[in-house]
Amino acid sequence: MLVLSSPSGAGKTTISRALLSSEPNLTMSVSATTRPPRPGEVEGVDYHFISRPEYLRMVNESALLEHAQVFDNFYGTPREPVERALAEGCDVLFDVDWQGTQQLADNARNDLVSIFILPPSIDELERRLQSRAQDSDDVVASRMSKAPDEMSHYSEYDYIVVNSEIKKSVAEVRTILAAERLKRQRLIGLRDFITSMQGN
Amino acid sequence: MLVLSSPSGAGKTTISRALLSSEPNLTMSVSATTRPPRPGEVEGVDYHFISRPEYLRMVNESALLEHAQVFDNFYGTPREPVERALAEGCDVLFDVDWQGTQQLADNARNDLVSIFILPPSIDELERRLQSRAQDSDDVVASRMSKAPDEMSHYSEYDYIVVNSEIKKSVAEVRTILAAERLKRQRLIGLRDFITSMQGN
Repeated sequence: MLVLSSPSGAGKTTISRALLSSEPNLTMSVSATTRPPRPGEVEGVDYHFISRPEYLRMVNESALLEHAQVFDNFYGTPREPVERALAEGCDVLFDVDWQGTQQLADNARNDLVSIFILPPSIDELERRLQSRAQDSDDVVASRMSKAPDEMSHYSEYDYIVVNSEIKKSVAEVRTILAAERLKRQRLIGLRDFITSMQGN
Repeated sequence: MLVLSSPSGAGKTTISRALLSSEPNLTMSVSATTRPPRPGEVEGVDYHFISRPEYLRMVNESALLEHAQVFDNFYGTPREPVERALAEGCDVLFDVDWQGTQQLADNARNDLVSIFILPPSIDELERRLQSRAQDSDDVVASRMSKAPDEMSHYSEYDYIVVNSEIKKSVAEVRTILAAERLKRQRLIGLRDFITSMQGN
């Protein structure tokens, strides 16, 4: 389970897309949300767009690995597709905020790797937010006002990537993923391999 | 602090040399030993060759970060050059066994990364040991008899690299090193960088 979090606008979504296209064994966890689709967003690809009653039902049935309110909307990670992907030997990528990361960590039994993406500067963060055509000035201002608090949660993450240049940041995340796959506790069949070499 | 350990003959020394030539910020910790030099070994490069009284003096003065008896000889890691290299911002590579790794971990204050190198098979391990021209059949047999016990300590290491092909193994160790350098707690000045972006 690989989590990428960042203040809104730091480049998390772009990095996630590049990562998914270069890592065949990595699959994206698609969040459920009660917010309306933005222009171009596709059901089941960008999000599962659900109603509030549906969301509340999933919370009550523990069908969400994490859930949170962000601005005026509700978000959550459906449990079933994640557990299925992990059982098939896939790594799963999560695009969630610090609240979601904390809840995922509680559900991950030591198998969560978390990366916090930072912008190279606060001016660059604002520039990136303003270049998003779909957002109004009010939305940009609201996101900028939340950035300091979001960034204060960097200390809860395993790794930090400063996103100065997308290509370099994607390479760094891939390096982290490759190294984490060499961690002893993730190597399947290792004990049997050692035992066979010990001649027992 | 990066530790590579392996059963004798798994390729640790070859991997270490390739790593040092490709990682300019990495410096090798040169062990001290009471064993006599092998043909071609250079004082201060391969080992610091010291007498038993000298060794005992260093143990008594806590001048060794770790020390152990291996076969009939004593080995240890002089503390002063390691602390100097770390203070200068270098990473330090250690070629020690599981006993040394445990002692280094106690002295490392959470800054130790440990990798266990495995041979691809027990037959390949024997073949590699036999191809070392300087070792007698008795030495090969002795090392082979110790291999199962040495391998049983794999579970104390952070990462596992199966050394089927040197080039691939070196790349894997470099990947681990690159990822570990992105760990939050190793990023110097991160707190100040965040604070400056928060406008405090």
